[in-house]
Amino acid sequence: MAVPDRAGEVPAGRTLEEAVEAYLRKRLPDLVAAEVRKALEGDPARQTCRIIASKGTLDWAYPPFILASAAAAMGMDAAVFFTFYGLNLLKRDLRVQVDPIGNPAMPIPVPNLVAALPGVRSAATWMMSDMFRKKGVPSVAELRDVCIESGVRLIACQMTMDVLGFKREDLIDGIEVGGAAAFLNEASRAHVTLFV
Amino acid sequence: MAVPDRAGEVPAGRTLEEAVEAYLRKRLPDLVAAEVRKALEGDPARQTCRIIASKGTLDWAYPPFILASAAAAMGMDAAVFFTFYGLNLLKRDLRVQVDPIGNPAMPIPVPNLVAALPGVRSAATWMMSDMFRKKGVPSVAELRDVCIESGVRLIACQMTMDVLGFKREDLIDGIEVGGAAAFLNEASRAHVTLFV
Amino acid sequence: MAVPDRAGEVPAGRTLEEAVEAYLRKRLPDLVAAEVRKALEGDPARQTCRIIASKGTLDWAYPPFILASAAAAMGMDAAVFFTFYGLNLLKRDLRVQVDPIGNPAMPIPVPNLVAALPGVRSAATWMMSDMFRKKGVPSVAELRDVCIESGVRLIACQMTMDVLGFKREDLIDGIEVGGAAAFLNEASRAHVTLFV
Repeated sequence: MAVPDRAGEVPAGRTLEEAVEAYLRKRLPDLVAAEVRKALEGDPARQTCRIIASKGTLDWAYPPFILASAAAAMGMDAAVFFTFYGLNLLKRDLRVQVDPIGNPAMPIPVPNLVAALPGVRSAATWMMSDMFRKKGVPSVAELRDVCIESGVRLIACQMTMDVLGFKREDLIDGIEVGGAAAFLNEASRAHVTLFV
Repeated sequence: MAVPDRAGEVPAGRTLEEAVEAYLRKRLPDLVAAEVRKALEGDPARQTCRIIASKGTLDWAYPPFILASAAAAMGMDAAVFFTFYGLNLLKRDLRVQVDPIGNPAMPIPVPNLVAALPGVRSAATWMMSDMFRKKGVPSVAELRDVCIESGVRLIACQMTMDVLGFKREDLIDGIEVGGAAAFLNEASRAHVTLFV
Repeated sequence: MAVPDRAGEVPAGRTLEEAVEAYLRKRLPDLVAAEVRKALEGDPARQTCRIIASKGTLDWAYPPFILASAAAAMGMDAAVFFTFYGLNLLKRDLRVQVDPIGNPAMPIPVPNLVAALPGVRSAATWMMSDMFRKKGVPSVAELRDVCIESGVRLIACQMTMDVLGFKREDLIDGIEVGGAAAFLNEASRAHVTLFV
């Protein structure tokens, strides 16, 4: 219907629909953008962190446990999938070592001929653990406990268990066993996805 | 324009704009939230998986091919970008090896002095391949075929080809050649982004 | 208020508010859906790239700097978090090396007994740098400068600095120092998240 126009407010002969439409076109973008921002704040992908832990040495044990526990402390839904060498990190009898051979980026780089000598691997492992301990960083076993206590889901890769011959009782309590596909499905709903 | 008010219906002097505005204030949040939920459900980022394969050894050949083929089997749009050492994995003449030196997380850890002996690299490669084969996991070459057959796009890094002197005919058929920027652009529309 | 009705347009006795509501009920969903689509196109997660650089050797120095500078060149908001061995890459006195030992995927694979000889690490470093230089790829130090100049934020991990005893003046200017939690928080708003 035509809206009785008043000078300067609605063009003469404009219908109600046209007036509403014109107003919406002007107002809606900002209003919707603000609402979308608000809705995205609650996007579950922003609250979800999925990490794959594929390495089983001392040095590469820290990142997944530190990142996952930090994510949990921030209130995120965090899970780590332990696959390949990484399955070591879920062993009941946790023995992770670091080897300085071939890594010129070690805190104290060691020539390979020295790094190859018996005892150097153990020494490097002791030194690295000690360096972290002295600075108050929890041990890998402690970080693993922190993860479980703070609700991080730790998932052992089923295929790796089969291939490497792990039994469920070799691994700690409080964890899950699952497949790569299930984990990928969860990761597809997470913004933070990291392969360590 | 001001709308002539009737008692009990509209506050005195309410304009058309105010009426629209009041309705929007009431209805818009829910409408937008529902639309955002719907859009996020169908968000193509949830259906997209982008992996960078940067390593070229036997052990690190499995993760990109297994993850990408699992993603494709789930109906995701999956692509792997092979760069640096990872370009090895696209070679027509595929020869991937694993070396136990410096990796105390190997299934059967080997002291470095032993690992350095001639023949140990080949033996470790044979053992790892055999372990997987015995458990029914396809070989790397087979996994690569599975990826191509299931629609995973395999992309060779152009810069790596230039730097390492690879020619197109050194690489298998059915792949693409592209740059890091193009790949990043695709990854920016994917939830699952992994650097292996 | 009652809107003067015209046959076929507004039911008799309908108020302006009712007319506006009826129109909005019909029109708003489509308009909102279109606006939401537009707003999501500008989803900041699509424009954001967060990389963790955890390794400090020559070979693993290229990927974070190349990817981050490529992302910045595409107009993305890019940041790299340097942690663990990766902190080396922010040293004022940048000395990154590559070691061929234990890597059968090297461009020119070297038996471990040869790789362990004194001078081989330096030779391999020279060869790899030279290979890149000859193809016009900037050096790691140059790539780092490109990153800073193009607005990539480079962030040193505070905990790593503490544990490894780095002082602020050991690191280059133009960088930030921060924690893993703060970085994770940013990464939770990024589609591209990579752990190198």
